[in-house]
Amino acid sequence: MTGIAPRDLKRLSINQETVKQWSLPELAAGCAAAGIGSVGLWRAPVQEYGVERAARLMRDSGLTVTSLCRGGFFTVADPELRARALDDNRAAIDEAAELATGTLVLVSGGLPAGDRDIAAARERVADALAVLAPYAAERGVRLAIEPLHPMYASDRCVISTLGQALDIAERFPPEQVGVVVDTYHLWWDDLAPAHTARAGAGGRIAAFQLADWVTPLPEGVLLGRGQLGDGCIDLREWRRRVDAAGYEGAIEVEIFNPALWARDGAEVLAEIAERYVRHVS
Amino acid sequence: MTGIAPRDLKRLSINQETVKQWSLPELAAGCAAAGIGSVGLWRAPVQEYGVERAARLMRDSGLTVTSLCRGGFFTVADPELRARALDDNRAAIDEAAELATGTLVLVSGGLPAGDRDIAAARERVADALAVLAPYAAERGVRLAIEPLHPMYASDRCVISTLGQALDIAERFPPEQVGVVVDTYHLWWDDLAPAHTARAGAGGRIAAFQLADWVTPLPEGVLLGRGQLGDGCIDLREWRRRVDAAGYEGAIEVEIFNPALWARDGAEVLAEIAERYVRHVS
Repeated sequence: MTGIAPRDLKRLSINQETVKQWSLPELAAGCAAAGIGSVGLWRAPVQEYGVERAARLMRDSGLTVTSLCRGGFFTVADPELRARALDDNRAAIDEAAELATGTLVLVSGGLPAGDRDIAAARERVADALAVLAPYAAERGVRLAIEPLHPMYASDRCVISTLGQALDIAERFPPEQVGVVVDTYHLWWDDLAPAHTARAGAGGRIAAFQLADWVTPLPEGVLLGRGQLGDGCIDLREWRRRVDAAGYEGAIEVEIFNPALWARDGAEVLAEIAERYVRHVS
Repeated sequence: MTGIAPRDLKRLSINQETVKQWSLPELAAGCAAAGIGSVGLWRAPVQEYGVERAARLMRDSGLTVTSLCRGGFFTVADPELRARALDDNRAAIDEAAELATGTLVLVSGGLPAGDRDIAAARERVADALAVLAPYAAERGVRLAIEPLHPMYASDRCVISTLGQALDIAERFPPEQVGVVVDTYHLWWDDLAPAHTARAGAGGRIAAFQLADWVTPLPEGVLLGRGQLGDGCIDLREWRRRVDAAGYEGAIEVEIFNPALWARDGAEVLAEIAERYVRHVS
């Protein structure tokens, strides 16, 4: 990474799904080698490695965990399924606390099978937060509602815009419930800039994540996120927007892309650092 | 179609892409046989058949053409390409006039290659309308801005919400520029109901189109629209919403779905009529 100084990467955090070819120890070693001091983690690989062991690895490597993905999926109406979802979210909160991250990202969940009432599903998200937010706050964890692109509204996340996320988050104290600003999900929305300012003014920006938008979208539309600079999102403008809203936290790169996973992790990290300096910071 | 009376289908219009296995004469005969009096047409098959000849066929068959799809794709910044796009749109307006439809659907176009300024691209849509709307009005054609789902924002249509469409349409007289309300594109948007009321109050609803939302989305996300009732959209609620906004026009079924195209056209039409009565009217 010729010409990139450590201070250039000060705010950069690597979400582990971006380099999912790496184990947790490889991620820790790779980030250290690349001069990157922060990572975003996912529950499944952390559980597989062992939560306590992962927490120790992060501490010993001097890595800050900027977020844990993810809780949520609590739009079910059935009481038993709902109770199970809330239990799972309490476990996610415990894991976040163990990893010493202040941010648990929530993807709300989609519409239950056969359900056509998206407004009611969104209300159930607020109901779940009312149960979980105090539990999380007691453990030093803030719940971060992530609006996902509207193409996921039916099967993953009924919260599609930053405005919707804030409408729910603002029912709770800002230190308990925040929002995630992710360029991949929000770039198309002409109202998102104003809502970013609103989120910043309310102290609600819990995480800022980056991926670029590229087409054609793959089947299932999950794994088509673009490397920074490969797509049509004005990433620097988004970084300025979030900065102008008063956000001073990590800038987390979260790209789900099999083409990146097929490459050498260190090479991918070097490319991200270079793109980050060129297109973001 | 046992039990379905002609008056049940009075407002139903079949967009020809829904049964694209049919030629224009087959479409005309098939609709007559099914008791359906209106169709939405597309430029390419009409041009292939001959515009004047298609217009005569529609007249002779007693079919009303509720819309012509589509003009638009005028987000280019390059002056020569822009001039060519405007010429093509004038041709589309002429074709709509010849087909005696009052509605030309506009899909704005996406971001030009390498362009990251979506706000500027949206302004170019308004600029193009300023040129085309008077030309269309002189020919008895209203331009209908169609917001497409945000998953098409980069490559097909920078207008993603009904609110954005109205923000542009309202710069022009309502008899010159309207909007399309299409359930497939708008169902996820919590602001769309209010904007539907706003569109109705302003006399701006030029077309109402139906398709259902089903997942997983196919590669390229173009041909994954669901048959009425197969997905998660509350279609009847949308019909009530549009009615409550004062819209009394056609209800056009526009489903791009290879599974429907592989079947017998008459069978597909019968199924649509049955679904329409069950889920919409």
